[in-house]
Order: sequence, then C-alpha cells, then structure tokens
Amino acid sequence: MHALELIERKRNGEEIPAAELREFVAAYVRDEVPDYQAAALLMAVWFRGLSPGETYALTEAMVASGETVDLAARLGRRVVDKHSTGGVGDKTTIAVGPVVAACGVPFGKMSGRGLGHTGGTLDKLESIPGFRVELSTDELVRQVQEIGLAVAGQSADLVPADRKLYALRDVTATIDEVSLIAASIMSKKIAGGASALVLDVKVGEGAFMRTEEDARGLAQAMRGLGGEAGMDVVCLLTDMEQPLGRAVGNALEVREAHETLAGAGPADFRELVTVAATNLLALSDLGIDEAEARTRCTAALDDGSALAAYERWIRAQGGDPDPALLPRAPVVRQVSATSSGFVREVRARRIAAVAMELGAGRERKEDPVDHAVGVVCHAKRGDRVEPGEPLAEIHARGEAAADSAEAALRSAFELGDEPQACPLVLATIR
Amino acid sequence: MHALELIERKRNGEEIPAAELREFVAAYVRDEVPDYQAAALLMAVWFRGLSPGETYALTEAMVASGETVDLAARLGRRVVDKHSTGGVGDKTTIAVGPVVAACGVPFGKMSGRGLGHTGGTLDKLESIPGFRVELSTDELVRQVQEIGLAVAGQSADLVPADRKLYALRDVTATIDEVSLIAASIMSKKIAGGASALVLDVKVGEGAFMRTEEDARGLAQAMRGLGGEAGMDVVCLLTDMEQPLGRAVGNALEVREAHETLAGAGPADFRELVTVAATNLLALSDLGIDEAEARTRCTAALDDGSALAAYERWIRAQGGDPDPALLPRAPVVRQVSATSSGFVREVRARRIAAVAMELGAGRERKEDPVDHAVGVVCHAKRGDRVEPGEPLAEIHARGEAAADSAEAALRSAFELGDEPQACPLVLATIR
Repeated sequence: MHALELIERKRNGEEIPAAELREFVAAYVRDEVPDYQAAALLMAVWFRGLSPGETYALTEAMVASGETVDLAARLGRRVVDKHSTGGVGDKTTIAVGPVVAACGVPFGKMSGRGLGHTGGTLDKLESIPGFRVELSTDELVRQVQEIGLAVAGQSADLVPADRKLYALRDVTATIDEVSLIAASIMSKKIAGGASALVLDVKVGEGAFMRTEEDARGLAQAMRGLGGEAGMDVVCLLTDMEQPLGRAVGNALEVREAHETLAGAGPADFRELVTVAATNLLALSDLGIDEAEARTRCTAALDDGSALAAYERWIRAQGGDPDPALLPRAPVVRQVSATSSGFVREVRARRIAAVAMELGAGRERKEDPVDHAVGVVCHAKRGDRVEPGEPLAEIHARGEAAADSAEAALRSAFELGDEPQACPLVLATIR
Repeated sequence: MHALELIERKRNGEEIPAAELREFVAAYVRDEVPDYQAAALLMAVWFRGLSPGETYALTEAMVASGETVDLAARLGRRVVDKHSTGGVGDKTTIAVGPVVAACGVPFGKMSGRGLGHTGGTLDKLESIPGFRVELSTDELVRQVQEIGLAVAGQSADLVPADRKLYALRDVTATIDEVSLIAASIMSKKIAGGASALVLDVKVGEGAFMRTEEDARGLAQAMRGLGGEAGMDVVCLLTDMEQPLGRAVGNALEVREAHETLAGAGPADFRELVTVAATNLLALSDLGIDEAEARTRCTAALDDGSALAAYERWIRAQGGDPDPALLPRAPVVRQVSATSSGFVREVRARRIAAVAMELGAGRERKEDPVDHAVGVVCHAKRGDRVEPGEPLAEIHARGEAAADSAEAALRSAFELGDEPQACPLVLATIR
C-alpha cells in the first residue's frame, strides 16, 4: 500500500482493493499515514464515493482497529440495538430502552455525546441528577443481566479508527458522504456485538439526509454492511422537517421522554418510540410477529411497566428518576402567535440553532453543555393556532439570551391557510 | 475567514471571495491553518477548479507571502524571463540565456531544482565543475549588470506559500490541476520581477499536459494571471511526445546545450532555442519585430557570440565552460535497431523512467542526483533506421544498471513503415 498512489487512484475514480484500504486505515491509526494524506483521501471519497466493497473494507478495517464486544455471547441471548442518524429533539433511545426492557428483551447500548445543537444521548442522560454514564463493559453486561437495561458511553478501545477519522472528517468538510457515514455507524454497531439493529434514518431539513432518496441510499448502504457482518438491519425513514416531539434541550428532552413513558407525551414522539420498539421486539428472540410486538409495546407505555423499567434503569446508574429534580432554566418565555392559521413550517434547523445559541449544544468536544436550556415547540405542523396562543417556549439562562432567541424562533414558524398531513414514518426498509 | 466553511463552500462548487482566499493562504503560511485542512481544500480544488478570480487571488496571496524583487527597476531596463512547464530533455534555459544576452538583452533568472527523472536547471548547471548556483539577489543583479546573464537558485524568501503548498500538493495527489499549476508558476514570476515572459507549455505524453486542449487551458490561465499583474506573456505550446533534443541527463544535457550554442546540436532543440529567444527579444526593450529578432538569434548561434556569452556566464559563476570537463559515466552502451523502419514513437515517459532509474533524477528533495548518467536518443520520430544502427545510448554507473535500462529503453522506441512530420511548436499564443 502506497498512500499517495491510493489517493490518486481514488481521486481518479478507480476501485481500491479491500486489502489496500484496510492497510491504509491500519497505517493511519498507527500514525504512519499523516492526517493531511487521510484528509486528501476523504475529500476524494466525498467526490467519488465508495463502492459497496470499499465501504465494507473500510468498515472491517475500523472494527479491526480496536476491541470488540460479543454482547450476545456474554448475555447468552440475541441482542437488539437501535441507532438514529441524528435529528432535532431526538430523545428516542431514552424511551425505547425502557419499553423494550419492559417487554423482556435485553437492551444494552453504547452511545455517544456528539457535537451540535444539543448534546447526544449521554449528555441528555447526564441532566438527571447523579446519573453515571461511564460504565465498563463488565458493568454494562452485569446491569443488563440484572435489570435488562443499560446505556453507557462508548469505550475508548472500541473502533479507535472511527474516532480518529471522524475527528478529521469533522474539520475537513467530509462528514456528509453516505459511504463514510454508513461505515462509521456500522463499524460501531458491529464492534458492539448487536445481533439485530433498528436504524432510524432521519430525512428532512433538520437531518443529514435532506431527501428521501438520499436517506434510502444511506439505509441501503447500512443494510448492506449489516448483511456482510451477519446482522439483521431494519431501517425506518422518519421525518425531520420539524423537531421530533416538542422538547429540544437536554433536561427538557428527558422530561418529555419521562412523560411519554408515563403514557402521555407528544403523539409523534410516542408513535416513533412505539414503532422502533415494535421492530426491536420483532427482531428479538421473543419469536413474536409485528402485530403482537406492537400490542405489547403499547401496553408497556400504558400500564406503567415501561415507566417502572425507566426508574429501575436510572437508579441502577446512580440517578434519581423524579422529573421534578431535573434542572430548570431561570427564564422561561412564551412565544405566541400574532395571527391565526395552520402551522406550515416548524423549521428544525432554525430551532436547533436557537437551542445551540442558548447553550444546549457544543461546537467542540471539550465544551460543556447547559442541561437546563432549550426550546419547547407547542405548535407543530398541521396545528391550528389563534393570535396569542403559544408557538413555543424558550428556556434560557437569562433575559438577554431569551431576547435574542425570540426573533430567531419566530422565523422558524410559518403559518398557512390549509391544514396538512405530516406523516412521521416515511418508509420501513426490511 | 473560517477555514472549515471555506473548504465546504469550495467543495460545493461555490466561488470563494478573493479576500477570504488570501486570508486562508496567509493563515496557512503562519501555521494557523493545519496541513490537513489545506489538503482537503486542495483536493476540493482538484475536483472543482478555481475561477480566474480565485486563481488570481491565490497567486496574489502567494506573492504577498514573501519578498519580491523588482529586477526591472534595479537594472533600469525591461527584463524578460522564460519558463517551461517541464519536459524530458528540457535544457532550453541553458542555451536561451546566452543567445538573449549575446543579443544585448539582460537575462537574470531564478530557477528551481525540481523532482523527477532528471534534476532541474540548477542540477544540470551543477554538473559543470565549480559552478555555483547560490547567488544572493544582489549578486544576481550585479552579474546581470556586468555580463548580462545570471541563473541562480530561487531565494527561500521568495513565495514561501508556494513552497509550502507545493510540498503538500506533492504528497496529496493534487499537483496536476491547471489553476494550481498556473498560480504556482506565475506567483514566482511575478515575485521575481520580470516585465515580460515567454512560457513554454509542453504538450504530450512526457508532459503534465497530455493534450493540446489542456495545454491551451493552462496557457490561457497563465496569460490571464500575467495580464492582471501587468506582465506580457507569450505562450509557446511545444511537443513533448518525445524528448527534446537527444540528451536526457544532467551533464549530457549541458553538453548538448553547449554544442547547440556552438552552432550544431539537434535540429528540434536549436529550433526551440531560436523560437524562445526570438520571442524574448521581441518582448524586450530593443524595439525590434519578430523577423529581425529571429535574424539576430540565428546569427548569435552561428557567429560564436552566444557561445562566448555562455562561457562568460559560466566563468562568472565559478565554473569551467570546457565541455570536456563535464563528468562522464563509466559505462556507455549503445542500443541498436534490430529491424528497419521509420521511428514512430520515442516515448518520453519511458525514457524519463530509464533516466530516473539510472540515477539522473530524484524522488525526494534531499536525494542526490548523479550528474553523469542518462540517455542519449540517437533516433528521433520520423528518422529512418536500419538494423544495427543506433537508437540510443545508455550512460550508466555500472553494467548491471545498463542491463536493466536496456530492455526498458527498447520498449520506448517503436518503428513503422511511414515517415511522419513531427512539428515542434504547435501554437504560439500572444
């Protein structure tokens, strides 16, 4: 493997043999290939893409770069996992885990922090007083054995190549390329040892994938990689034109997940939790069909068993599940409609920018997040509003921050004359 | 200027404002933008190209990164310069300088070493015993004032941005992009202070530009940059399907330049020297037309005045101009034709590879070159050869090196049944 020649061939649109691509990644992890050559290759890949064979070679090389966890073998059961490509207000894992666990299927997930408008799942969970996300692999397995549910930070030894390449992609404008995204996600899932996976691929202006066509491309790439690795993958293509649910912000989202587990919560979020959990149950070793799985998930949300599973889980990781203890922002300001109409747009990207500006997210890995702040969208697409009725609520650290958030937040909402249907699940790809 | 955003915009095909591009280059030279971001930008430029405005902004930024020399002001005369985009057997500067100087036009040139099959002009000149290429700018100016002619290494303070970017392009497969090549060449010419420039753009399998169309693109880009900077630029598009002249190798090329200045030498090389020198004279402050310029150049080659100028020049820089003192390789082996026919191909790239293998060139900046070794092509395209007649001569350090060169060299030659015309100057763009 000659790094310069490999870059040149990829740049020219040639197929790189799997062995050479694996060697490039291994050499990069060992610091034998410098960042600037990896950056040039990544940009060439951004323009040329990777073939399915190249994508799998990259995925394999990343898996091989660190340790792997055989969760299924250690639990002696089929293990299901769930992943989302990321959207605004996406607190799905926090509710899906308890539903699945309440239905008797073990759910042990390694999750990330992420950069962006709010923290990742780990940051959201850390808004719960006392909650501890740093579990060793042994602790994670033991907790799943004991209470059926654990969510922890990803071990530093898992897929170090992805960690290094992702950090480089992040600063070289090479994040948004389908084969690189697919390899990054699937390498972690394969190394994490899941038997089956439900992938929530977000589509719309608040997601990486702006069109259903792009999202289908990513879904197919990930299903292909899963297939090569012997993992069943079901992809849900779900709407991200507007935020998921109402809450955008770490503690606000935990509170909404809690409400949903208590049988209430926003309809769209409850629906996504139900669909994701249903697919996980259908992929599990329970041996039930989808209709039966949906019945059980709905029951778990309504009979308090999902909420009980949530409370056991939070306590097991040192937290207090009482939502009254979640941090609250000192300033809460309502933004009201000035005219009447049907909500046509709740622009996810603008709401994300407001949350970011309020301090809910981070630009750099080392930045802290403010768990209390964020936005709650009271009006969603298709809703009818009258003047004076709430569009949204700003949760801010101070009045000045609330002032500057208000104008930006208003521009995220657009009213029209007609009601509209806003389907949440656009497609299921099995 | 936000580096990541600038990379993303270029990647997406957007035009980057001149001020931002200048700031990016300045920040890169100050090590405030890391190599990996510059590498990602270069690869994006490889795919998207640069607009004329962006190319000029890049050129300006590179000129501004270091010192500039106002040669014309210091000499009190219009200064002409000559540059070649690089080909196999290209020793043109070594003969053109003396012709121009013999005709009364000052010629003070800063030249490079270059990587590749043979050294650059400086390496070729260093095969002359005692010749010193490291002149300060003051020494260069003084020598041009005294004897009308000097060729020196480029000062480290001239265009440091190009030095740094070129080194990065070299290891990231981003050398061969027209706007980057144009900006790199023209930044050095503009910083070097020439009033007018004759650019020899090589076309063919032995050159960067494989097709006349590509070469025209590069010529237009460089003429555009020259125009912006107030420099007259004439581009010659010249054939590089076969080596220029017969000699490929440092001392071998100096010997051929000497023969040509003595009124002999290969016809194609003499023609290129005459055409380049004619254009330089026509661009100079002599105030003569092209026909008159050509008459004077031809006379200088035939009446010994160009040779005398060469000898003055070499002595002024500490060398001995006697060609008998040039180093000679211990093994000289003739490669003869085994059948009869007209030479159809003398593949420049293969001959370059043989010269490289023999030790005439370098892969890394720090590698030494062997001045004595190389190849002399006795047969050129269109020549008639009979079995046993020489095709070429190998000048090698030892028998083993000559053995391995022989087979490769044979494959560079192809005979056919028909004679053919091989025009050298394909076009002149004024």
